[in-house]
Amino acid sequence: MKRRDFVKKLGTGTLLSGGLLSYSQSALAKKKRVKWKMVTTWPKNFPGLGTGAEYLAKLIETMSHGRLKIKVYGARQLVPAFEVFDAVSSGTAQMGHGSAYYWKGKSEEAQFFSTVPFGLNGQEMNAWLYHGGGMKLWEELYADFNLIPMAAGNTGVQMGGWFNKQINGLQDLQGLKMRIPGLGGEVLKRAGGTPVNIPGNELYTSLQSGAIDATEWVGPYNDLAFGFYRIAKYYYYPGWHEPGTTLEAMINKKAFEALDKDLQEIVRTACKAVNQDMLVGYVAKNNAALQTLVNEHKVDVRKFSDEILKKLHQLSDEVVAELAAKNAISQKIFNSYQSFRDNVIAWDNMSELAYMNARKL
Amino acid sequence: MKRRDFVKKLGTGTLLSGGLLSYSQSALAKKKRVKWKMVTTWPKNFPGLGTGAEYLAKLIETMSHGRLKIKVYGARQLVPAFEVFDAVSSGTAQMGHGSAYYWKGKSEEAQFFSTVPFGLNGQEMNAWLYHGGGMKLWEELYADFNLIPMAAGNTGVQMGGWFNKQINGLQDLQGLKMRIPGLGGEVLKRAGGTPVNIPGNELYTSLQSGAIDATEWVGPYNDLAFGFYRIAKYYYYPGWHEPGTTLEAMINKKAFEALDKDLQEIVRTACKAVNQDMLVGYVAKNNAALQTLVNEHKVDVRKFSDEILKKLHQLSDEVVAELAAKNAISQKIFNSYQSFRDNVIAWDNMSELAYMNARKL
Repeated sequence: MKRRDFVKKLGTGTLLSGGLLSYSQSALAKKKRVKWKMVTTWPKNFPGLGTGAEYLAKLIETMSHGRLKIKVYGARQLVPAFEVFDAVSSGTAQMGHGSAYYWKGKSEEAQFFSTVPFGLNGQEMNAWLYHGGGMKLWEELYADFNLIPMAAGNTGVQMGGWFNKQINGLQDLQGLKMRIPGLGGEVLKRAGGTPVNIPGNELYTSLQSGAIDATEWVGPYNDLAFGFYRIAKYYYYPGWHEPGTTLEAMINKKAFEALDKDLQEIVRTACKAVNQDMLVGYVAKNNAALQTLVNEHKVDVRKFSDEILKKLHQLSDEVVAELAAKNAISQKIFNSYQSFRDNVIAWDNMSELAYMNARKL
Repeated sequence: MKRRDFVKKLGTGTLLSGGLLSYSQSALAKKKRVKWKMVTTWPKNFPGLGTGAEYLAKLIETMSHGRLKIKVYGARQLVPAFEVFDAVSSGTAQMGHGSAYYWKGKSEEAQFFSTVPFGLNGQEMNAWLYHGGGMKLWEELYADFNLIPMAAGNTGVQMGGWFNKQINGLQDLQGLKMRIPGLGGEVLKRAGGTPVNIPGNELYTSLQSGAIDATEWVGPYNDLAFGFYRIAKYYYYPGWHEPGTTLEAMINKKAFEALDKDLQEIVRTACKAVNQDMLVGYVAKNNAALQTLVNEHKVDVRKFSDEILKKLHQLSDEVVAELAAKNAISQKIFNSYQSFRDNVIAWDNMSELAYMNARKL
């Protein structure tokens, strides 16, 4: 039965009194039972990231009373990790979960919406996105690809990485072969290192064999599971190159616009809830993993020296400014990001940072 | 028409074929159109806090397609601010928005679920609530009052307050008459000060007349609107007494349990979304207000000395431990909170704090 026919019958039917007509309209709204595919850049149920995508799908299904069901696919189950963007853009899948810096081949300026070296942390990033104009710029950028972006997760401040040699001064970065992709890699290169990009599945053997000297990954919770402690001696912090990486849900524009208004709000709100939940999930889980690394596996945890951090900050500013200068859109996003960053740092220096330093006295 | 009659007619009706029966069931689910009252401890549409409550109601209405409509009442529109807890507990209203430390007269241990001096910041608090066992303890505590609590907003780290004299050393706290309620007030008392509790509407004149020397409020965004800059010289940070105050939505247990499962999840998820949104809204708005205070109103912003902060921390630990010792429930909550606090500080020292300090070099 077509919807129009259904409405017509309702309009003329003798069974349904006027008092019930409102329910019949609700019934129509219910008529659309939609099934979506969500492709992701993570292995199915990968801790934190993949489980976050599953949680997102579950929330949407429960809140919509099953009207919008989303089946989550791990990387390579439907499309390879780095084809998620294209798959959702073309409508092969209606939804994707990943992080914007994976699509720099399509749009270099997308990187501003995941993380940049010495940029915003997770809380500040969400402040920019929701209350500082960031979401609007992100939506503009992705509209060209037939996509609607939503922030849907955050790793928090990552760790600096696993090293098989001590990094005591700038000279130790010379010639350092490290797996560190993206802007962080470019910064390392300018500091004299050799950034290499190796797929996750070859990482362990590369570090073990000495093909690389170091690698960054995420933070203690994910790094412990990966087993890096077996093959690397030193674990450095802080993760200057990824201070709060935003994960994204991207949605095919036509698929989203075809949803009823209540379902659209359900999708948006579920993303907001998952965005927070994943961030604080990492906050809660990282320390236990760190303690296991230190106490059971005797990992040597070290802090980068101020000299190194200062230099990396200076080089990061250069690299990010060059990214901004690539085109007008990139410059527009950078201007908004940078002006928000300056402001939020001024405030955090008196609030979050001042408080955490005071608590440590 | 009663629901049972409606179902019966559907079952025998000739108009509705088997294929449509599923929609008729949906129609039944839709039948419950629920109206709730939300009483709040804030003036109607008070920036940040009251507007957050309105946003929460709006999200729930939109996601539920109008099946759950919530009318928000400002303080004193239906019940006075400090009667919100009783009103929701008794079912006069189905929902409330406030903060748990307002109910310490009913349950002193409720204070752990808003904020404690030198305790968790907003992000850490949410990590404890959602992933460290905090929510479960909060639910247990409120169950005795026929209430279900949900975290639904956060102010972030507050400011230390407005002072009409310089606070350079511990001796300047002696005899200081300051409006600072709750645990923070008890800490000030032990440091030699005189905490007083004055309702918001008398605060301005009390500070202006010299009846008090100082007052704390929230942070720049709210404090600018209040106009404290006209009558106080010094604005101190950080807000050691309220490092990330959680706002709560409390819901009458019977009212919540009467909701369909999808509506329950909509309410829970809306609270999670607002919980994050309010926190990062404050992050985004506080600096602009701070700049106005400094540049236009020439406010003298100062940091408490390390000596003062160390002493206040030590006294805070005493006060919080005494709160814990009051009864078995309080001790149970404290043990969970404190153990999470120790862990999360260890992690934040290597992540958020180390990163923010590195960025400042």
